[in-house]
Amino acid sequence: MRMNRRTAIGLAATGAVGAATTAALVAQGPESHPVAAGQHGSAAAVPFYGDRQAGITTPMQDHLHFVAFDVVTTKREQLVDLLQTWTAAAARMTAGLDAGTLGAVGGAPEAPPDDTGEALGLPPSGLTLTVGFGPSLFRDAAGKDRFGIADRRPEALQELPRFPGDAIEAGISGGDLCVQACANDPQVAVHAVRNLARLGMGVVSVRWSQLGFGRTSATSRAQATPRNLFGFKDGTRNLKAEETAALDEHLWVPGADGPAWMVGGTYAVVRKIRMLVETWDRTSLTEQEAIVGRTKGEGGPLGRTNEFDEADFALQGADGEPAIGEVAHIRLAHPSNNQGARLLRRGYNFVDGSDGLGRLNAGLFFISYQRHPGRQFVPVQQKLARHDVMNEYIRHVSTGVYACPPGVRAADEHWGATLFG
Amino acid sequence: MRMNRRTAIGLAATGAVGAATTAALVAQGPESHPVAAGQHGSAAAVPFYGDRQAGITTPMQDHLHFVAFDVVTTKREQLVDLLQTWTAAAARMTAGLDAGTLGAVGGAPEAPPDDTGEALGLPPSGLTLTVGFGPSLFRDAAGKDRFGIADRRPEALQELPRFPGDAIEAGISGGDLCVQACANDPQVAVHAVRNLARLGMGVVSVRWSQLGFGRTSATSRAQATPRNLFGFKDGTRNLKAEETAALDEHLWVPGADGPAWMVGGTYAVVRKIRMLVETWDRTSLTEQEAIVGRTKGEGGPLGRTNEFDEADFALQGADGEPAIGEVAHIRLAHPSNNQGARLLRRGYNFVDGSDGLGRLNAGLFFISYQRHPGRQFVPVQQKLARHDVMNEYIRHVSTGVYACPPGVRAADEHWGATLFG
Repeated sequence: MRMNRRTAIGLAATGAVGAATTAALVAQGPESHPVAAGQHGSAAAVPFYGDRQAGITTPMQDHLHFVAFDVVTTKREQLVDLLQTWTAAAARMTAGLDAGTLGAVGGAPEAPPDDTGEALGLPPSGLTLTVGFGPSLFRDAAGKDRFGIADRRPEALQELPRFPGDAIEAGISGGDLCVQACANDPQVAVHAVRNLARLGMGVVSVRWSQLGFGRTSATSRAQATPRNLFGFKDGTRNLKAEETAALDEHLWVPGADGPAWMVGGTYAVVRKIRMLVETWDRTSLTEQEAIVGRTKGEGGPLGRTNEFDEADFALQGADGEPAIGEVAHIRLAHPSNNQGARLLRRGYNFVDGSDGLGRLNAGLFFISYQRHPGRQFVPVQQKLARHDVMNEYIRHVSTGVYACPPGVRAADEHWGATLFG
Repeated sequence: MRMNRRTAIGLAATGAVGAATTAALVAQGPESHPVAAGQHGSAAAVPFYGDRQAGITTPMQDHLHFVAFDVVTTKREQLVDLLQTWTAAAARMTAGLDAGTLGAVGGAPEAPPDDTGEALGLPPSGLTLTVGFGPSLFRDAAGKDRFGIADRRPEALQELPRFPGDAIEAGISGGDLCVQACANDPQVAVHAVRNLARLGMGVVSVRWSQLGFGRTSATSRAQATPRNLFGFKDGTRNLKAEETAALDEHLWVPGADGPAWMVGGTYAVVRKIRMLVETWDRTSLTEQEAIVGRTKGEGGPLGRTNEFDEADFALQGADGEPAIGEVAHIRLAHPSNNQGARLLRRGYNFVDGSDGLGRLNAGLFFISYQRHPGRQFVPVQQKLARHDVMNEYIRHVSTGVYACPPGVRAADEHWGATLFG
């Protein structure tokens, strides 16, 4: 039976949709419709239950609402209760249902609605909700074990170091918990984040949140490579869902790494990167291409032709200089120059209005997933922060790192069950 | 011949797309594909040339990027030159071409590209660009006639008064010029605004800008009514494209109103309205519906059943009280209680992250078009500002009013030609 908010409203009003049927409603088979850049993503549902969390290797949607929360309760049982409540709501919303077991329309009229309503009538829109736990959840800044889980903090979950040139704003960084909401309709992603925040009242508080559009990667070979706000194709060499062996090597936490509760999970590194697009736009095409190391139109590595041609770092131009400069972005970031380190990137473009100085407040909301940030993101970013000429045009203003546990396999499990269980 | 950025890139590189062919490329016949809420809008082009500006009665797209500029030159000819340059770029971009006559790829390699590139390969996506002129363009705060057009300022173009409860921030209000960019792909809307800003360097400076998603009106009977972030259907009774007589009465400036250069144009009133959604979400369903005057699910006027039923303001409930309260939003705003005043609304939802106090910085970016703001928006808003219970949940933080001239009919005309000609 296919069902979404459209049909659910009527049933909710008659009481026919209860908790018992939610699991059945959301246990739909895999449905994904990979799309090219410039085409809209699918309105269908992405399965919520599974060994892995959705929203990592599943096809990238068109829109992002990322949110980080601070936990404001000191009571472990309140936090675990909320994670259970959130999981049930996430299962419903990703299936295109409203957030509560009875929706705005069927709820008690004298109580606040169980759903905020702005997604009533909208299809699932590929919504995925991906949860992560920040280092501060395990031990606060004063070193206190807040919820009896300090000894479960993974060795791989360390606050990121300060990189040269960082201009980090604490108010839009970190957080005890994060949720990445991605959907092909921004109203659906916003609705999901808002309802999680609503359900968390008194237990968590929104620390910061960010909207994004125009994915800056592909996570499947069936998705065309999109463009970032420098106008270049981004994510050509991204780790993709089809590379199953590489995903096991670079993305998913294996039993050998531990801890046990993170096996099958991964780590998210998030960086809000302001781009000084007005300055970039005054730079010549030649200079832009030299900085990136690719052509702007086709996206081929300099000296080669097509986007997916392998970069040839030994190739020289007629002038005897390397076709791809020594500090070109793609040379510095290439796995062959970083002990083979690869990431799965899942970033989005953002424009947060303008900055009061006549410039758009625009850039890239970088999200990457990896098996071990300290061995993947951190060394690559150390190199980029020191040498990349692109740094003249960007500022890292926000940072976060989160442990994303394995997936919720069935309705009797919940986010964090492996951590708090 | 159908053409978009995809095919244009190759032609631009060979020099085959010149200014002479632009007009032919963009002079496509009417194409519009009205869509229901939750479905994505069309990727096709909306005609740029016409007696009226597009982006007013044409079907609402899924995304908005609104920008206001300050003119930084004192030279009239520089301003007129820019308006000509902008018009040519707007004609190209709305047709799905890049901003310049030669694109990023075909341009001179040692010069900055003629297009910023992030929309290369994307279809027209229904892009419309709608220009408006603020009161300050005619005469600055000191009363100076900046560009020799002070005597052409329409009587109807007056700064809006301060309304009770207003919390206006000057930095995100006003502006000498505005452009409303709407598209079914946000990357296409952002690309257009960015390229206009790039082309305007030294002549104009971005004063403020705002992104929006999830249209909060329909401008055609073929579009389903969407929902705002209070979760209610919004724009049920909006002035719609099919009501041609009402458009003549309430929207388009007739010859009798003048000035001559505005005949066939209209006036935009823009208000950024922050919604305190967390407070709203703690309010009971009954209270929410009483404040709005409609049911949340179906959207019918209280006491009636269906969304499009006429509100019956005389109807009493079993308790003898009016079914629609004396200060319900739809009663206060209804034309029958406002000397028949109607508006064409074209607003969008927004979420600008969070506010540092644990709340989403969310709301409604209200845009309305009308024949005379002082007789339409202003008296209705005076009433709402004084009596609407909804004010407990909203804050008007930004304001703007702009004269939107008639359309550009052919490639030898330009934005502002009737004003500066």
